[in-house]
Amino acid sequence: MKRALLVARLCVLAASVPSLCSAQSVPKTLAERLGFPRDAKLVIIHADDVGYSHSVNAATTQALETGLVNSASIMVPCPWFPEIADYAKSHPSVDFGLHLTLTSERVYYRWGPVAARDLVPTLLDSDGYLLHDWTSSTRIDPQQAEIELRAQIGRAYAMGVHPTHLDSHQYRLYDNGPQLFQVALRLAHEYKLPLFVTRDWFRDNPYIEASLGPGDVIIDHTVTISPGVAPEKWGDFYIDALKNLQPGVTEFVIHLAFADSEMKAATRERDTWGAAWRQRDFDFFTSPAFRKVLEDQQIHLVTWRQIAQAAP
Amino acid sequence: MKRALLVARLCVLAASVPSLCSAQSVPKTLAERLGFPRDAKLVIIHADDVGYSHSVNAATTQALETGLVNSASIMVPCPWFPEIADYAKSHPSVDFGLHLTLTSERVYYRWGPVAARDLVPTLLDSDGYLLHDWTSSTRIDPQQAEIELRAQIGRAYAMGVHPTHLDSHQYRLYDNGPQLFQVALRLAHEYKLPLFVTRDWFRDNPYIEASLGPGDVIIDHTVTISPGVAPEKWGDFYIDALKNLQPGVTEFVIHLAFADSEMKAATRERDTWGAAWRQRDFDFFTSPAFRKVLEDQQIHLVTWRQIAQAAP
Repeated sequence: MKRALLVARLCVLAASVPSLCSAQSVPKTLAERLGFPRDAKLVIIHADDVGYSHSVNAATTQALETGLVNSASIMVPCPWFPEIADYAKSHPSVDFGLHLTLTSERVYYRWGPVAARDLVPTLLDSDGYLLHDWTSSTRIDPQQAEIELRAQIGRAYAMGVHPTHLDSHQYRLYDNGPQLFQVALRLAHEYKLPLFVTRDWFRDNPYIEASLGPGDVIIDHTVTISPGVAPEKWGDFYIDALKNLQPGVTEFVIHLAFADSEMKAATRERDTWGAAWRQRDFDFFTSPAFRKVLEDQQIHLVTWRQIAQAAP
Repeated sequence: MKRALLVARLCVLAASVPSLCSAQSVPKTLAERLGFPRDAKLVIIHADDVGYSHSVNAATTQALETGLVNSASIMVPCPWFPEIADYAKSHPSVDFGLHLTLTSERVYYRWGPVAARDLVPTLLDSDGYLLHDWTSSTRIDPQQAEIELRAQIGRAYAMGVHPTHLDSHQYRLYDNGPQLFQVALRLAHEYKLPLFVTRDWFRDNPYIEASLGPGDVIIDHTVTISPGVAPEKWGDFYIDALKNLQPGVTEFVIHLAFADSEMKAATRERDTWGAAWRQRDFDFFTSPAFRKVLEDQQIHLVTWRQIAQAAP
């Protein structure tokens, strides 16, 4: 935003010196860097929470294999991480990132940290699991968050996952102040991976924009469904979002699973992001209706792997 | 065994002094301490591995509610431990022990230790999970095993489980020398819980008998099915075992789950103790055929809670 404004002002100031503001000097948009026209409509259909459960893994890999869902990110502390690590190793072209995880947000099915528990006490509840939630009195030590996230990234590489990007489970690293965001950004730089950040978040969390450097990728928009959408309106919500897509790159953050006995049991204490929710996402994003709207609206799918290669 | 022999010899030596070998001076058998005649046939139908997965939890609690399966033990490091801890809290009369766990024996679905990883390195693989298996070159530090098992017991009590007994996942604490067995026994004494030990193991592992004191419970026999039994012979195996039951207390060690998508995926790399195996156990031990053989053979069910109260 700031850079775009600066360029615009320089162009106004330099109106009498056209060579200063030639086509070459205007920074390329992300769409252009990806080889598309400036007004192209590009989407990443991104499934979160892979590794969470077998149901999530099975639904996500099935959806990825349709080609209609084209990116996903993996939770390393989860019990079913080994299953998805094995899949990632045998499917090296699939666009898997790491879904950096600092919480274990369910009640009946839980996980602990990857790092040694005594190194990350501020991340844990009294039973040794990653915290169920963060409240106003929670004080996460950013250094401990970094220790844990380094351990997650280390285990992923050690078990054969070569991630294409990083993002954050439950947006914890985006929504909780500059220190935690900078932990994520520092790890992204160190591992030379793009971190999912969208311009849509800059207003609410200005420290995100302020922390970014010229080499960081900025996704133009993001779409994710919220508890306010009635189940019977699920498809309409996504079709409206696709029909009203803005030019540039939009990441759809979706959550896939089957509403089977494992997933129903794992999420039974609340419906939000629960088994039926995830089944609805699966149903829509593998449907002919979704494929048709992509075609009708001339929307193109792009991956984080392409974005990493097109970094500024 | 040794004590019984000693008593028999003393009775021979003291044949002329009947008061020395009156009925009162012959130690009571476990069956007698439980209030049954010496020749009664008593069984514990004991489901292992609770907490392992939702499928195991659902099948085991359903089987416990029939009354035909009457005891079970819980794996604290497993991801679904919180679900079964919640069930145990709301069903305080159910006979739940702790299934002390030092391995994570599957490939696609795994768990780490409850203790801090840096305190128990000999229990872990390079990815930080509990070892998949122990080989001839594995060197488990018994002190580290004790740290981990104390952490498991501590978490169980902290989360509201009040166990009735202890036993060992995959028999690791019984089959690997006196030091590990004595860790289990020391914890059992400290927490005043009976440890599952059967006379059937004394010949192969003499250190078990040698480690026991007069206050320890000894189960007379144990029955568990092995990979040599063909799936179609499952029921026959158990019915034969029940029809040929010896007097005294016999623990049937069984493994329950549903052959659903979670369990099939969790165990897919080998069939032994896998999803179909556990479904067969569930089907037999909740069947009318099982109930009938118990009745026909005048076999009585006893729990670990009763055994603890009848300790020598």
